[in-house]
Amino acid sequence: MITRNRKLIAPVVFLFLLGCSQIGIAQKRKGNTVYFDTTIAADATPAVLAQFMKSDAKSIAEMKFEKGIYHFYPDKGFEIYAQLSNHNNGLAKTAFPIFNMKNLTIDGQEATFIFHGINIPFSVENSQNIKVMNLSIDWGMSFHSEGKIVAVDPVKKTFDMQIADEYPYEIRNGQLIFIKEYYEHNIGQSILFDPKTTAISYDTEAYTSLTTRTKVKTQHNVKNIKYKYPVDPKAPENSRVGMEDKLVVEQLQPGLLRVFNHGKKIPEVGKILTMKGEQGQNRFAPAFHVVASQNFEANNVNVHHACGMGIIVENSENLTLDNFNVTPSQGRMVSTTADATHFVGCRGKITIKNCTFNNQLDDAVNVHGTYQEVVDVLGENSIGIKVGHYQQQGFSIGVPDDTIGLVNLHQSFFEYDKLTLKSIEKINSRYQIVTFKEKIPSSLKKGDYIENLSAYPELLVQNCTISKNRARGLLLSTPKKIVVENNYFATEMEAILVPVESGYWYESGSALDLTIRNNTFQDCNIGGQNRGIIRFETDDESKNVAFKNILIENNKINQFDDLILEVNNTDGLRFKGNTISNSGTFKMIYPENPAFSIKTSKNIIFENNKYLGKANPILKTDGSVPNLKFK
Amino acid sequence: MITRNRKLIAPVVFLFLLGCSQIGIAQKRKGNTVYFDTTIAADATPAVLAQFMKSDAKSIAEMKFEKGIYHFYPDKGFEIYAQLSNHNNGLAKTAFPIFNMKNLTIDGQEATFIFHGINIPFSVENSQNIKVMNLSIDWGMSFHSEGKIVAVDPVKKTFDMQIADEYPYEIRNGQLIFIKEYYEHNIGQSILFDPKTTAISYDTEAYTSLTTRTKVKTQHNVKNIKYKYPVDPKAPENSRVGMEDKLVVEQLQPGLLRVFNHGKKIPEVGKILTMKGEQGQNRFAPAFHVVASQNFEANNVNVHHACGMGIIVENSENLTLDNFNVTPSQGRMVSTTADATHFVGCRGKITIKNCTFNNQLDDAVNVHGTYQEVVDVLGENSIGIKVGHYQQQGFSIGVPDDTIGLVNLHQSFFEYDKLTLKSIEKINSRYQIVTFKEKIPSSLKKGDYIENLSAYPELLVQNCTISKNRARGLLLSTPKKIVVENNYFATEMEAILVPVESGYWYESGSALDLTIRNNTFQDCNIGGQNRGIIRFETDDESKNVAFKNILIENNKINQFDDLILEVNNTDGLRFKGNTISNSGTFKMIYPENPAFSIKTSKNIIFENNKYLGKANPILKTDGSVPNLKFK
Repeated sequence: MITRNRKLIAPVVFLFLLGCSQIGIAQKRKGNTVYFDTTIAADATPAVLAQFMKSDAKSIAEMKFEKGIYHFYPDKGFEIYAQLSNHNNGLAKTAFPIFNMKNLTIDGQEATFIFHGINIPFSVENSQNIKVMNLSIDWGMSFHSEGKIVAVDPVKKTFDMQIADEYPYEIRNGQLIFIKEYYEHNIGQSILFDPKTTAISYDTEAYTSLTTRTKVKTQHNVKNIKYKYPVDPKAPENSRVGMEDKLVVEQLQPGLLRVFNHGKKIPEVGKILTMKGEQGQNRFAPAFHVVASQNFEANNVNVHHACGMGIIVENSENLTLDNFNVTPSQGRMVSTTADATHFVGCRGKITIKNCTFNNQLDDAVNVHGTYQEVVDVLGENSIGIKVGHYQQQGFSIGVPDDTIGLVNLHQSFFEYDKLTLKSIEKINSRYQIVTFKEKIPSSLKKGDYIENLSAYPELLVQNCTISKNRARGLLLSTPKKIVVENNYFATEMEAILVPVESGYWYESGSALDLTIRNNTFQDCNIGGQNRGIIRFETDDESKNVAFKNILIENNKINQFDDLILEVNNTDGLRFKGNTISNSGTFKMIYPENPAFSIKTSKNIIFENNKYLGKANPILKTDGSVPNLKFK
Repeated sequence: MITRNRKLIAPVVFLFLLGCSQIGIAQKRKGNTVYFDTTIAADATPAVLAQFMKSDAKSIAEMKFEKGIYHFYPDKGFEIYAQLSNHNNGLAKTAFPIFNMKNLTIDGQEATFIFHGINIPFSVENSQNIKVMNLSIDWGMSFHSEGKIVAVDPVKKTFDMQIADEYPYEIRNGQLIFIKEYYEHNIGQSILFDPKTTAISYDTEAYTSLTTRTKVKTQHNVKNIKYKYPVDPKAPENSRVGMEDKLVVEQLQPGLLRVFNHGKKIPEVGKILTMKGEQGQNRFAPAFHVVASQNFEANNVNVHHACGMGIIVENSENLTLDNFNVTPSQGRMVSTTADATHFVGCRGKITIKNCTFNNQLDDAVNVHGTYQEVVDVLGENSIGIKVGHYQQQGFSIGVPDDTIGLVNLHQSFFEYDKLTLKSIEKINSRYQIVTFKEKIPSSLKKGDYIENLSAYPELLVQNCTISKNRARGLLLSTPKKIVVENNYFATEMEAILVPVESGYWYESGSALDLTIRNNTFQDCNIGGQNRGIIRFETDDESKNVAFKNILIENNKINQFDDLILEVNNTDGLRFKGNTISNSGTFKMIYPENPAFSIKTSKNIIFENNKYLGKANPILKTDGSVPNLKFK
């Protein structure tokens, strides 16, 4: 056993207090409630941290804040090595380090918390019954930047953008770098917003992302470097090899920039270009990180920004977001720079209701498990696994006694055997030794995947508004009961994606009991990708069944384009009582599409639907469902 | 108290083994000795790690290796968040994770260990009586690169260099990037070697470092970004703001590059340019990291390379390096890319004998304490301190019961008061709360420094060869007894520097009992800096005494240039029985210098020396030592 216990040297896990800490700021404590007032507002970090550091911190039941605006600077903030699924792992400060605590409510009483730097507002780990309510979260300077397109030159294929003072920048060797307090980013991933609608701009994918990179012209002997083990070509340290910058930016006058060498369509005058830095290097501080915790709740919380997601939840059980809103502030087009909410390896029930998820630069809700790849068989009971995606580094697939499925996706989307988890030894961020209680079957092969069958949640998404954002509404990858009802969708890509995906994100979990009812879909897929607004999709070529028991009923779909529903690899789907109309809001991008595409599926039923759209034919199938008719 | 105990999620500190680990490779264990043979040599990492992970690992007394060449890859290596003084903190693998162990000997039996990637071969933490012997350490691909100057154009001010196949590269937007397995670096810090001598090239400082950076031409509103607290302008994340690349590199043909825009003298044909990447971003994996440990010993160990230092030792007690050699291999000019050895905050006795430190890209030995800056007074017994240098992040100044000095360097180099350390709470890498047993005196002010008076070692440097390296031989900052005898010095900068430095590196410790005897100094300071080969120096303008009780006797100094000894801020120095001659090896760079410069000092004695050099006058003083004569 390796124990590494550097008592005075490792803040990352243990903070040893020999004696009671007197930070010098006395907050009022009455019984088990701590009251903060605005005298701490200039930098609330030390006062809040002091409460968590007290030897009796675990008995605090409530922290209440006087209404006001509180700033949280990172300089004296508690630092952790943050392992964040779907973000970058790294050092971060955290203002509310809620570790190993129970029955704690943070009540902002309508306060606003303004964060600065790489600062995770709420880190909830190994805790139960934590509730956060009545507050707004924002950052002083955003982790993204915006520019207004003010002129174009279609001949020279350049465009000019005006940059407001709140986005300081410099140009290094022709590269535009935005400078923030404690942060900087290049153009990286970009997308257009339409200030008239404050939503993503129609057909943006024809214009963005800006083509920032191209292959190097000169490389010598790099391809001969030998690696003993496979490397992940998508991890940023590898994907940058062989690439150089393509765009060149020049300043015409202070605050006015000209962009050269963009290879897609030139953005239109009047649109807002938002830029957030290089993929894989732009997610360092979600607003909420919840891991290995039970019964977390957020109520009446507004998240206006984050360096990454609004909330990322890992390996937790039972969670409620009620009136948890991700919306922009301060005149920005953008709220959070990544997903509004994201749940990996959770169990119990996730309830998301009465929420608004607008203007974030990625999906609204993503619920899934993970696949990990078997790379070694080590003895009778143990295997060595490799983490597939560089943003899952350090992720623990489960806890002892979980049921782990062994999967060969080429054969089937469902497990061919199951074992009981005994232990996980994490050797490094990418490699873990997983030991089972039973002997490993001889059928297990290197290259197979494991999946935690015990770590999938039920999901309710109810009465939410999901609009104006980049990417999708809901990504649903759990076999437990899912109900999506009474929501409003107006998303840049699909409103609802039901995927099984193993080649890139390693996200597991097929939908086996899904109800989508009484929702309104208003002009989704405006970004320009050729997809249905509801899609069932695997990234495999196989014809195996992935999805079952799908009910889509009584929804109103008012869509400018034709393709509504794509069904693949499904056994059992009812599309019933829905009304589809053509909104006419935008020019159709793919007028040749049908409304419904059904492939490699069976037991598909249409009944009692009203179609008022323009697709012809309405239904297109591949012969797996002969005689299927739209009704 | 904040306890963060993510049992299955934090490999950084705790690795929980529920049940005995069977990694599948059985090494022979006889009693308390483990034998490894070369069947594991293709990647020795898992087999070695397996031994450390066994529940009875702590009873291992010896690990022996069959003689041979063993490779250590990082892919299945144990990962830690490494906090390394004078290096970059970050994730690293470590092949020998010696944590909380005692009485363990690693005997290579003349084996060679070849490492790959960011891999710290030996991490020794909280351990006692650890001994490493009889082995060589190297890397498959080096973390630096070399180019041979083959042509120059003095009119266009360009030069051409030939790059051998072992240094793969690419050019991104005119920038030369060397690609390694698991690593890359730009030109960054560079220096010239002379292949005829395999030493640093004469007067290199007129030619190098290559002038890689320049100020940006375009910056908008960056200066208006408001920071609540002072930022460290030297930390890489800040020092890169406002700077861009200046050099441009083009490939003439594969393996032949032309460099444009270098602003110093153009390197000469035939010389070797070594490049190691950006300062502050090129030290990730020393060969040995020893922290909070007692009685460490290395005997008959050859370190041919590291991404950083040969050995960095922090907060440890009693250490012996005997026949511990840092030398290049595989035809490289360079051994380690930073210091051969470095000791911070140590106590007891450090013995360095029979060692060779050649060709490393920084000092041979540096022994010092640290200053930390008082930024807050928090209550009667506690202060908030800030770590001064970005490569000291996370450094713990001491342990409970240590005597901490309060220092105001403007008034004196010695403490004005002392307190007893009770506890340290590390809030983040830069900010710590230090609590004392006594009340803090009212004389303590923000901006003062603290210094750990209990954490200074005695030092013996004996019978060592220190030559061909960049920078200095010995840096000596400890008030305990230091003896430097029977060594050979031929260094690029000073052979011996005795500094008190507070403005950049925050290294504390004045020499108060130093003997330098029977050494040979052969052409030091060849790099071209205007300095004595032995220097006593503070970076303060003050006239206060820093150094005492210095004896320099019976040394042979054969030096091409004039200036031998610089003495500042010293009370009590005897220079006795030394022979100084002019070697004639190189043309003098500073022929106007005296041999001896004495300033702001007293009680300086010269006796029985022989001067055969060319300086005139021999001795120059500032009046603090009237009537001083050289004898």
